[in-house]
Amino acid sequence: MSDVKHTVIRSATREVVIGSDQPFCLIGERLNPTGRKIFAEQLRKGDLSRIAVDVEQQVAGGATMLDVNMGVPLADEAELLAKAVTMVQELTDLPLCIDSSVIEALEAGLGAYRGKALVNSITGERERMDAILPIVKRYGAAVIALPNEEDEIPDEPERRLEITKKILDVAVGEYEIPIEDIVIDPLAMPIGADTSLVKTTLRTIELIHDEFGLNMTLGAGNVSFGMPGRAALGAAFLPMAMQCGLTSAIMDVRAPQMVEAVKAADLLLGNDDWGAAWIARSRAAVAAAKAAAEQTA
Amino acid sequence: MSDVKHTVIRSATREVVIGSDQPFCLIGERLNPTGRKIFAEQLRKGDLSRIAVDVEQQVAGGATMLDVNMGVPLADEAELLAKAVTMVQELTDLPLCIDSSVIEALEAGLGAYRGKALVNSITGERERMDAILPIVKRYGAAVIALPNEEDEIPDEPERRLEITKKILDVAVGEYEIPIEDIVIDPLAMPIGADTSLVKTTLRTIELIHDEFGLNMTLGAGNVSFGMPGRAALGAAFLPMAMQCGLTSAIMDVRAPQMVEAVKAADLLLGNDDWGAAWIARSRAAVAAAKAAAEQTA
Repeated sequence: MSDVKHTVIRSATREVVIGSDQPFCLIGERLNPTGRKIFAEQLRKGDLSRIAVDVEQQVAGGATMLDVNMGVPLADEAELLAKAVTMVQELTDLPLCIDSSVIEALEAGLGAYRGKALVNSITGERERMDAILPIVKRYGAAVIALPNEEDEIPDEPERRLEITKKILDVAVGEYEIPIEDIVIDPLAMPIGADTSLVKTTLRTIELIHDEFGLNMTLGAGNVSFGMPGRAALGAAFLPMAMQCGLTSAIMDVRAPQMVEAVKAADLLLGNDDWGAAWIARSRAAVAAAKAAAEQTA
Repeated sequence: MSDVKHTVIRSATREVVIGSDQPFCLIGERLNPTGRKIFAEQLRKGDLSRIAVDVEQQVAGGATMLDVNMGVPLADEAELLAKAVTMVQELTDLPLCIDSSVIEALEAGLGAYRGKALVNSITGERERMDAILPIVKRYGAAVIALPNEEDEIPDEPERRLEITKKILDVAVGEYEIPIEDIVIDPLAMPIGADTSLVKTTLRTIELIHDEFGLNMTLGAGNVSFGMPGRAALGAAFLPMAMQCGLTSAIMDVRAPQMVEAVKAADLLLGNDDWGAAWIARSRAAVAAAKAAAEQTA
């Protein structure tokens, strides 16, 4: 069993600590044009106005951080990401996760960011590590690492652990990134494809938690992809994954059922002292319901 | 890691298999006068009519089994339990859990039951085991065992494992109850009393699962006792406990949020082949919502 590690992410004025003894870190996934046709079209035309709505909804939903991805085909992603990062920082003080598969875009996003960002992401591919880790190091950022290589997404948790070790050898050993600034994505796959895949993810989380004590994040929506009742599946999956050692997720924080499940699991795992956050949340919900009832009365 | 064990419980016409490769076993907790003043008063007067409503609601809620407890102070519990068991068997073919702290009541309940019951419960106290296990053996029943002794509810999971071992030595070694017919209650305690207690329960489940592969059940409502948002806490707790190896719970199956969480966890843990049960449940929910909308239109 490895010691608890704290990943500290910062905006200009706010600090978030990710760790297995901390409340779960909810990274809002919404600032991403993938699967959002209208938003993608707006961004392509340089219209970033929708971002304000998405930020507001995610802050209201209880996000701890926001992911920003501007991957629009045929657009200048670097320019778009820098603009979006600048804009989001004017709208909220939540720390950001700078998300792109394009190296120049990551660099532009980091250049526009004030604070210590989380970079999304590297994999076990040497070429990608050699391109991205120097930028991560230069900006003093933390980085999400996926334990897969080229075309291989390993089926075995043990193989994912092996690739994690290889990534640490490069990122920590060669590039001298502090080990607590490496956040592993244990690779959540759709249950609809194969009902054994969630167990693989949970086992990977346990192995990485026990071996390295690293923080982990994943795309919570991946698990329920293509299934009905997605929020309910996410609400059951996240407490299970938290119990195994997951400390963060990139997720739809606008889904109250999933956020509630995370807050309940925080309490159950001893990361909500005296249940203060849970009780405050319940009181606010009761007050809101009462106000709504009075308005319609 | 021990092999998966199957606990088979039967009514006259229906069989339930409890096991970590099976859908979770939901034992309806409602047929119990504890904390139900009006119901207790009715039972004391010999009025068992409320039982029909409770059975119907729990069957509709998705119970796999029903717990029957008739612990009313100043009443003849043995007579009451025998009557209730007879009545419930006329109302449903779900197998039953015969629940009492009074040995004569357990015996009367088992005498009235047709099938293989689950007996609730023994502890590590030698005297109680010597009184109840011969009855369990005679009726060919399975039995729930709580790893505590006299006034001691051990804080350490390892101590609970030790008492479990001691119980197995007596129940299996001396009374020759098949090991798969011992179902352990890992002792769920209120999170409101101490936020570390849930971790203790989860760790106990892991230890007993790994060491003996035994089935386990617990009172799911205990965890949230005294807290607001009880269904939400139960809905987060059960998937976590199932991930650790819990295979059953005595719970309020009338709470859709908790039942939904259990069904989602079945799917996520690979115990709902092809997601057939989950998809059927979702379709039924959509159809019910549509029918309700048409009725109000």
